[in-house]
Amino acid sequence: MFLRCALRHLTLRSVGPVTTPVRTLASGNREVPALTRDRYPAQRGSFAELSDDDVAVFRGILGGPDSSRVLTGADEVQGYNIDYLRSVRGYGRVVLKPRTTDEVAELLRYCNERRLAVCPQGGNTGLVGGSVPVFDEVVLSLQLMDSVERIDEYAGVVVCQAGCVLASLEEQVGARGMIMPLDLGAKGSCHIGGNVSTNAGGLRLVRYGNLHGSVLGVEAVTAEGRVLDLMSDFKKDNTGYHLKHLFIGSEGTLGVITRLAIFCPTASRSVNVAFLGLRSYDDVKQTFLSAKRGLGEILSSCEMIDAPSLDSCTRFFGLQSPIEKYPFYMLIETSGSDAGHDEEKLTRFLEQSMEQGLVEDGTVTGEPTKMKNIWKLRELIADSLLSDGYCFKYDLSLPLDHFYEIVLAVRERVGDHAINVTGYGHIGDSNLHLNVSCSRFTPEIYALLEPFVYEYTSRLRGSVSAEHGIGFLKRKYLHYSKQAEPLRLMRQVKQLLDPNGILNPYKVLPPESPTQEMGH
Amino acid sequence: MFLRCALRHLTLRSVGPVTTPVRTLASGNREVPALTRDRYPAQRGSFAELSDDDVAVFRGILGGPDSSRVLTGADEVQGYNIDYLRSVRGYGRVVLKPRTTDEVAELLRYCNERRLAVCPQGGNTGLVGGSVPVFDEVVLSLQLMDSVERIDEYAGVVVCQAGCVLASLEEQVGARGMIMPLDLGAKGSCHIGGNVSTNAGGLRLVRYGNLHGSVLGVEAVTAEGRVLDLMSDFKKDNTGYHLKHLFIGSEGTLGVITRLAIFCPTASRSVNVAFLGLRSYDDVKQTFLSAKRGLGEILSSCEMIDAPSLDSCTRFFGLQSPIEKYPFYMLIETSGSDAGHDEEKLTRFLEQSMEQGLVEDGTVTGEPTKMKNIWKLRELIADSLLSDGYCFKYDLSLPLDHFYEIVLAVRERVGDHAINVTGYGHIGDSNLHLNVSCSRFTPEIYALLEPFVYEYTSRLRGSVSAEHGIGFLKRKYLHYSKQAEPLRLMRQVKQLLDPNGILNPYKVLPPESPTQEMGH
Repeated sequence: MFLRCALRHLTLRSVGPVTTPVRTLASGNREVPALTRDRYPAQRGSFAELSDDDVAVFRGILGGPDSSRVLTGADEVQGYNIDYLRSVRGYGRVVLKPRTTDEVAELLRYCNERRLAVCPQGGNTGLVGGSVPVFDEVVLSLQLMDSVERIDEYAGVVVCQAGCVLASLEEQVGARGMIMPLDLGAKGSCHIGGNVSTNAGGLRLVRYGNLHGSVLGVEAVTAEGRVLDLMSDFKKDNTGYHLKHLFIGSEGTLGVITRLAIFCPTASRSVNVAFLGLRSYDDVKQTFLSAKRGLGEILSSCEMIDAPSLDSCTRFFGLQSPIEKYPFYMLIETSGSDAGHDEEKLTRFLEQSMEQGLVEDGTVTGEPTKMKNIWKLRELIADSLLSDGYCFKYDLSLPLDHFYEIVLAVRERVGDHAINVTGYGHIGDSNLHLNVSCSRFTPEIYALLEPFVYEYTSRLRGSVSAEHGIGFLKRKYLHYSKQAEPLRLMRQVKQLLDPNGILNPYKVLPPESPTQEMGH
Repeated sequence: MFLRCALRHLTLRSVGPVTTPVRTLASGNREVPALTRDRYPAQRGSFAELSDDDVAVFRGILGGPDSSRVLTGADEVQGYNIDYLRSVRGYGRVVLKPRTTDEVAELLRYCNERRLAVCPQGGNTGLVGGSVPVFDEVVLSLQLMDSVERIDEYAGVVVCQAGCVLASLEEQVGARGMIMPLDLGAKGSCHIGGNVSTNAGGLRLVRYGNLHGSVLGVEAVTAEGRVLDLMSDFKKDNTGYHLKHLFIGSEGTLGVITRLAIFCPTASRSVNVAFLGLRSYDDVKQTFLSAKRGLGEILSSCEMIDAPSLDSCTRFFGLQSPIEKYPFYMLIETSGSDAGHDEEKLTRFLEQSMEQGLVEDGTVTGEPTKMKNIWKLRELIADSLLSDGYCFKYDLSLPLDHFYEIVLAVRERVGDHAINVTGYGHIGDSNLHLNVSCSRFTPEIYALLEPFVYEYTSRLRGSVSAEHGIGFLKRKYLHYSKQAEPLRLMRQVKQLLDPNGILNPYKVLPPESPTQEMGH
């Protein structure tokens, strides 16, 4: 093949065998975490407490006295109270599983009248404590709302309920020659409704944009049980205010998304992955620009990994990287409609990058297993860093001119307090994952990191939460990215859509009074 | 060249010389239209009337007593009172031309306190009467706010003031290897702020998506003069509610956009245009799907034109179409980073489409002049239909399965009342322009068309305004696409952001009382 010859000429190496990870953290840390109310000094709002009468009403709405869609057993509800990272735990006593929009509306109407706080929950894969109760909120799980109503390959649209699992949608639209416009590690369990509620980012964003562009229509139920039909199959629809965007990324605090219409791009026939070694961040930045220009329309991912990130990953999981000993690495993925054309573009891009001295060494593959193995080197970094004991994780958007500086600044600042200070992420979307791992949490290192990292980001007008959202854990940092006026308008919008504040309280908006202020 | 050979084999013809249009309508109909208040029974709101004191205050804010940025002469202000289509005319007595966000804020604060209604204005190219006063609103022109602050080719971002002309931005980002994510006929005079305020669509949408995806940040001033800094350089920014979308497409009724950050894709090196003849709408639909799959990532426009549309255009402008006598035509544009690859893909797609009997004949070109001439056949249709005397224009989004049926239904319904009933538009975005031309407006044909067209669209859950917006002229049709709950929330949002209703009144939201109801 043309590509392979060219690569040999360029002394790019082929991908070696990559050992399967020996363990994952998910199977490790299984003990029940402390209750959020004991760990964080947040204060419970003046909501009603759940009574047996309430449970009876819920059963009435969800199928009668013996309903299996109202969970109240301690064991049954526990999983719905603990988040994926096991960093927070609520003590919600009831989990409700509606099947229809009308049921959601009826449940919310009742909760709103009774002043019962509600935590809407999708696949519970969020990373900021947004998807589980903080105290005793009623859990409204969308799990059973997983019907796909319609797939239209002409217009490129899937219409479905909010509880559909992303991977299942991917499969179903895939059978019709399309892909979902987003892809993320949690796709096996995350719900599309949760993805949209949190405006999830992920790996394809550089190619297909964010969900504000891809979500064509939304049906949402407000706290008062009003059904807002904002469904549409169309990218062009200028009929009044574009209200659906209020529900995209507001993390279930303004309404519960029940149905969706999502634009699905045409699937690519050919996918290739290149893994490159580079000498400096400047070369990374320059290579990204070259990739945009040289690969143009086929560029589908552009990731940066620094040496400490890769080292941590290969060491912990016993993986072998096809190239080593570079301070920086890039993972570039292309996808297009013609394998030959894509290979030609990729080869030319790599030749030029090596001739210009931007890329030192690299490997390219179009074989699915090998591509998967290369992606592992990127996707398992986060888990490997957790193995050091404790890991401070920051998910920032930063200007590319200053993208990596913060890693150096933090590394210098924390010195021996940290085991690893690493930076990796979606350079194609200006999104840096800054991680600081240490053997255990200490107030000293915490004080060195915060508010330093947020102030640094704020000075550069970066985003203190690029793709993870605010949830419960990041509320007190919101003001680093949003000034007083936008915060004020957010509160007004919240008040308008949820006057009693029952929907996902303690999330997104910062506490108004200092007594509500959270600590670490 | 490979492409040319293949095409000869396929008996596609080359593009013949296309005569330059002998006249355009823009130079024709120059008489001053009737005042809106005389033509439509809309009722003036209880706003204050402009006084000399107000003008003095405006001058004080905008540079002093001799300020050239406060226009009051009848001749000076007339152009700002008449819309592009000359279908509406207000009688605003003053035009204000701020240069800075602070000046906008100070002007609005004053107008809000004084209860003076304000009509924000960009390039005044809107088609629904949204950009000029209905009565005597103060015109706030963004004309002088045309600074480009920053262009970043690494991240692909332009940051600028709202009054920048689209074509000028296109030129400036073009010099840095990028393009603007939108392109429309009015680009020589429309402002980017107006584009965003109206969520303008246009010709590149099938490739780059709508502005909700491309606009990274917005700075807007509310009616009360509060500056909302929602600026961001990032596609990934999940820090609280995504408020900027309230200002995208709300047509200046919720705030005045003053600054913007827009994502700019990398420019394509190669562009090709194919013009094809087809026998039926079904073949058009099928060819669109084949184009999405075969051309994939290089497809940048996909337009449909029916025979009456093309005939009207060629006849009125004395143009010659490279192919003739087909009931349907398609204009397909590709843009990509490698001319050879693009030609190969296009040739293969055309060969297959012809073998399958979908496409009967066609022509392809990559020469700029010839491409321009082909585009003229599409872009001048609207003007040619106006030449029949009077033209009812509908801008609809419709499901592709029923995309063309409405043209047939209307044609049958209006019979001899119409000269032409034509359908053309952006099939790639499900956007149909339905036009009904006649020698003059008559109540009979009007009654045959409306509400028929809107009810038909509503039954199919289409959009009654795909890309033109609602403005003043389409308010009473909004309910065909939006039900009571969304309309109620729109009013609440308006009340929240503009409690005195001074910002672009009589626009977007339908009149609440029947006495405010507009006629034709």
